[in-house]
Amino acid sequence: MKIHVAKEILSANDAVAAENRAAFDEHGLLVLNLMASPGAGKTTLILATAQALGDGVRPGVIEGDLASRIDADTIAARGIPVTQINTGGSCHLDAPMIRTALPQLPLANLDLLFIENVGNLVCTAEFELGAHRAVVVASAPEGHDKPYKYPGMFARADAVVLNKADLLSVFDFDVDYFRRGIEMLNLNAPIFPLSSRTGEGMEAWVEWVKKQVEER
Amino acid sequence: MKIHVAKEILSANDAVAAENRAAFDEHGLLVLNLMASPGAGKTTLILATAQALGDGVRPGVIEGDLASRIDADTIAARGIPVTQINTGGSCHLDAPMIRTALPQLPLANLDLLFIENVGNLVCTAEFELGAHRAVVVASAPEGHDKPYKYPGMFARADAVVLNKADLLSVFDFDVDYFRRGIEMLNLNAPIFPLSSRTGEGMEAWVEWVKKQVEER
Repeated sequence: MKIHVAKEILSANDAVAAENRAAFDEHGLLVLNLMASPGAGKTTLILATAQALGDGVRPGVIEGDLASRIDADTIAARGIPVTQINTGGSCHLDAPMIRTALPQLPLANLDLLFIENVGNLVCTAEFELGAHRAVVVASAPEGHDKPYKYPGMFARADAVVLNKADLLSVFDFDVDYFRRGIEMLNLNAPIFPLSSRTGEGMEAWVEWVKKQVEER
Repeated sequence: MKIHVAKEILSANDAVAAENRAAFDEHGLLVLNLMASPGAGKTTLILATAQALGDGVRPGVIEGDLASRIDADTIAARGIPVTQINTGGSCHLDAPMIRTALPQLPLANLDLLFIENVGNLVCTAEFELGAHRAVVVASAPEGHDKPYKYPGMFARADAVVLNKADLLSVFDFDVDYFRRGIEMLNLNAPIFPLSSRTGEGMEAWVEWVKKQVEER
């Protein structure tokens, strides 16, 4: 019974995700679904990426949180179009929430839309939103064992950012062990160790994002 | 329909949680449900706490993870009775999982049982396990805004540990802002800034745990 209802919900979600995708494609927009643990640094990564991309790529953001407008306010203060979704108790964004948010954004004037999902390394992976790429943002303080403990998330990533990489040594973080854990699940996802705060390692990630936008 | 089924599941869970609680009380055992984001340092906190408590308090551990035995192996290597629950895809522990794990532990020879929940700052808060106290483990790298973004979790905490507090300045962590966020939701939960790694600030937390065990 539980499983039957869950399947119905997922299939209804997928139908709306397909509509979202069509709306994105109509505007020639590349959409990234950023998923991570709470506090991995998704917002800081979005801001650093937008700045590094420069004027050639016009970004927008959908912010997902259970509560508060903290991240949306931070992004709006930098002049980037943003809308906030508060999920109430829900542990993930879903496609209908995204559909509701779209009229709040000037889609025709954007090239790249970041969807910052709720901080959750499990549930967010189960709901398609209509995005073109799933990006998992891990971070050095969380430890190198995350791909082994949360395989579902890393298995479906199109790219993995390892944020706060300026602090790898502080946390005895073994990048090879982390990398092997991901490759065991997913041979296709490039891995980008970087620091959104110091700018270290940003180039390769920004090149990857730029390439996805250009291939739209 | 969705809500109706969810309510049935929760109520079945609560019935098993009450049975778990009865089993714990029969053995005079104090049980803590540790909830946190992935990588907040729950396992390191358990090990540091067990060591600081000394011989007077006999600890045991139930480890919850989607996959792997990494944490259980770490704890077993220190001679602490431990059993691992792998939830498969599930984003939280529930009471039936705990019931299944109990025969794997020497309950009659324990004073304190740590349940290390799946790393998830949302879903774990919704499922009673039968534990006596809910402890939220936040950590400095996650940032001081977590109580504002994940209010449900902090609202139901009986105590909050702020781990990795040796790195507060590295992450520009404003402890007062963090504290106000919790107090807005929950005036009763003591907050323990500490570092499981360096031992800094452990005394007040260990005293609190000891007091809970003695009051059983």
